[in-house]
Amino acid sequence: MSPRRNRRRIALISTGGTIEKTYDELAGVLKNEVSVLDVMLGQLYVEGVTIEKVALMNKDSLDMKPEDHDLIARTAIHKADECDGVVVVHGTDRLAVTGERIFASYSEPKVPIVLTGAMRPYQLRTTDALQNLTEALLAVQLAAPGVYLAMHNKLLEFPGVRKDTERGTFVAAD
Amino acid sequence: MSPRRNRRRIALISTGGTIEKTYDELAGVLKNEVSVLDVMLGQLYVEGVTIEKVALMNKDSLDMKPEDHDLIARTAIHKADECDGVVVVHGTDRLAVTGERIFASYSEPKVPIVLTGAMRPYQLRTTDALQNLTEALLAVQLAAPGVYLAMHNKLLEFPGVRKDTERGTFVAAD
Amino acid sequence: MSPRRNRRRIALISTGGTIEKTYDELAGVLKNEVSVLDVMLGQLYVEGVTIEKVALMNKDSLDMKPEDHDLIARTAIHKADECDGVVVVHGTDRLAVTGERIFASYSEPKVPIVLTGAMRPYQLRTTDALQNLTEALLAVQLAAPGVYLAMHNKLLEFPGVRKDTERGTFVAAD
Amino acid sequence: MSPRRNRRRIALISTGGTIEKTYDELAGVLKNEVSVLDVMLGQLYVEGVTIEKVALMNKDSLDMKPEDHDLIARTAIHKADECDGVVVVHGTDRLAVTGERIFASYSEPKVPIVLTGAMRPYQLRTTDALQNLTEALLAVQLAAPGVYLAMHNKLLEFPGVRKDTERGTFVAAD
Repeated sequence: MSPRRNRRRIALISTGGTIEKTYDELAGVLKNEVSVLDVMLGQLYVEGVTIEKVALMNKDSLDMKPEDHDLIARTAIHKADECDGVVVVHGTDRLAVTGERIFASYSEPKVPIVLTGAMRPYQLRTTDALQNLTEALLAVQLAAPGVYLAMHNKLLEFPGVRKDTERGTFVAAD
Repeated sequence: MSPRRNRRRIALISTGGTIEKTYDELAGVLKNEVSVLDVMLGQLYVEGVTIEKVALMNKDSLDMKPEDHDLIARTAIHKADECDGVVVVHGTDRLAVTGERIFASYSEPKVPIVLTGAMRPYQLRTTDALQNLTEALLAVQLAAPGVYLAMHNKLLEFPGVRKDTERGTFVAAD
Repeated sequence: MSPRRNRRRIALISTGGTIEKTYDELAGVLKNEVSVLDVMLGQLYVEGVTIEKVALMNKDSLDMKPEDHDLIARTAIHKADECDGVVVVHGTDRLAVTGERIFASYSEPKVPIVLTGAMRPYQLRTTDALQNLTEALLAVQLAAPGVYLAMHNKLLEFPGVRKDTERGTFVAAD
Repeated sequence: MSPRRNRRRIALISTGGTIEKTYDELAGVLKNEVSVLDVMLGQLYVEGVTIEKVALMNKDSLDMKPEDHDLIARTAIHKADECDGVVVVHGTDRLAVTGERIFASYSEPKVPIVLTGAMRPYQLRTTDALQNLTEALLAVQLAAPGVYLAMHNKLLEFPGVRKDTERGTFVAAD
């Protein structure tokens, strides 16, 4: 690891999920309708990298079909060729499915691909959204080439990452 | 770097600085009077590490004397012997003085020592405090042994880190 | 109106509604499960009155049955006998039903009964919850005896208040 | 009091004070430099009135001279002729001086003039700024003609309002 040689260009792919849900006042529910990634980035001090945003889809991951996972995986690997790192913002319920798919297809990783998401939408007063995005953006600069999950003060490497649905966080498989 | 083997015990040394300033309603000013580190930690999801808090001092770094920098450096190096990593929360004006002092005294680094701080107090509605603390807590798990500054989406390695007072951030010396 | 002679005892009846919805992380939805009224009150500077809290129910008002509206109306009128004013926190969808019921049953009003609610839950980062509660708590001290809705910088008097579901606010009937 | 006949045009005069202080990152202090009133109004749901903003000055009230108090008083009384109510945002240290001056000069009040301010700047994470502005904007619609202070869930009438510097709030003189 060489933190001094900052990786310069980071692709940030948004796919939706809890982290990006917004409140529909008239219907009274949280939905994936508009991306809040720009608002989140506007609250962070992001120095030393250029972020290339890719608004790929805006889906609750429970609604994702196999072709959605494939499209995200192909896009992430394609961006990995062009950039110094890739961050994927994703719903947590199916995040591990996409992570494993990227790992299986990304045979000779040249840069880190880091997935993240949140248990509580950014729009809530208390949320892990900004923390997790912060961690993903730093980890993608520090980690060795590979496929990762960054969340809750941890960086876990695929394969073998899974959601612990009882505790509401991710763990490394045994 | 091996993210799977998480470093387990992190010392978190607080020394004060802008990040910890609180508002005195009756005097109408921001001061270093009480630590807000516990409040900040309460807003983060910190999984996989044990944090050992050391409330060393609570000073605006402009008020630090040589013996303050020495005490912080000695404490950080001492904790580096006992823990898997050390985070030091510090005022930004003199952070680099302490960082260089730790670097000069920490001849054979065994773990990372990461300094951080903030340009805007945690108590403000918009602040870099939580972002920087998040970055320091993740970087201390991922970086090679050495002395660092984590702030504003960057990890910089001592020696040679300095505050850019015009832009309000830190840069690597040329 | 005599603002100097502050009314001293205010009953604050909570019944649920959007204003009190909290986020269930594991299910990923907003629900009426616990009251957040104490948290909201903890964020306000409430001087000069004693607030007597009555946690009557915690329901989305769309789920309220006739007996729920009756119970709320009876409780509000009962508290109006004992206190200098009554505030009722209520879901907006059926707030006007409860307001009309109180108006119809409260034949000779001796103190103000003020209903309020919110279009966005308190737990959201941007919300009208604190504004509306602030307005209800002040209006109940300033208004003449009667039944009112306080929300969005307005005080409207029953009968004839209705929700404008397109604009997401309340208006006086023509 | 007749809440149904909403007063339509409200003048909102800003003069500075703690409520409007902003943080200067490079100097590390809170100052009266730019008005944050538009930001605050952007967070409120203000229905049923037209607000006419008058950015008169932006001073810590401890720095106000007799001519400042005079100018504020003259402006408030002038606007009272044109509008249905006047709100004055003011530093708390000298708010009562301005309030008494308005009271002394406003011989036959036709509309309410309501002063407000805050003990903690709007820019802080926890603040009474939005609460107090909310109260002033509602009170100016509900109160009888006269000169008032709205803050901390209270409406107090001049003459005889003073700051309780120990408790950090306003009280009616005995």
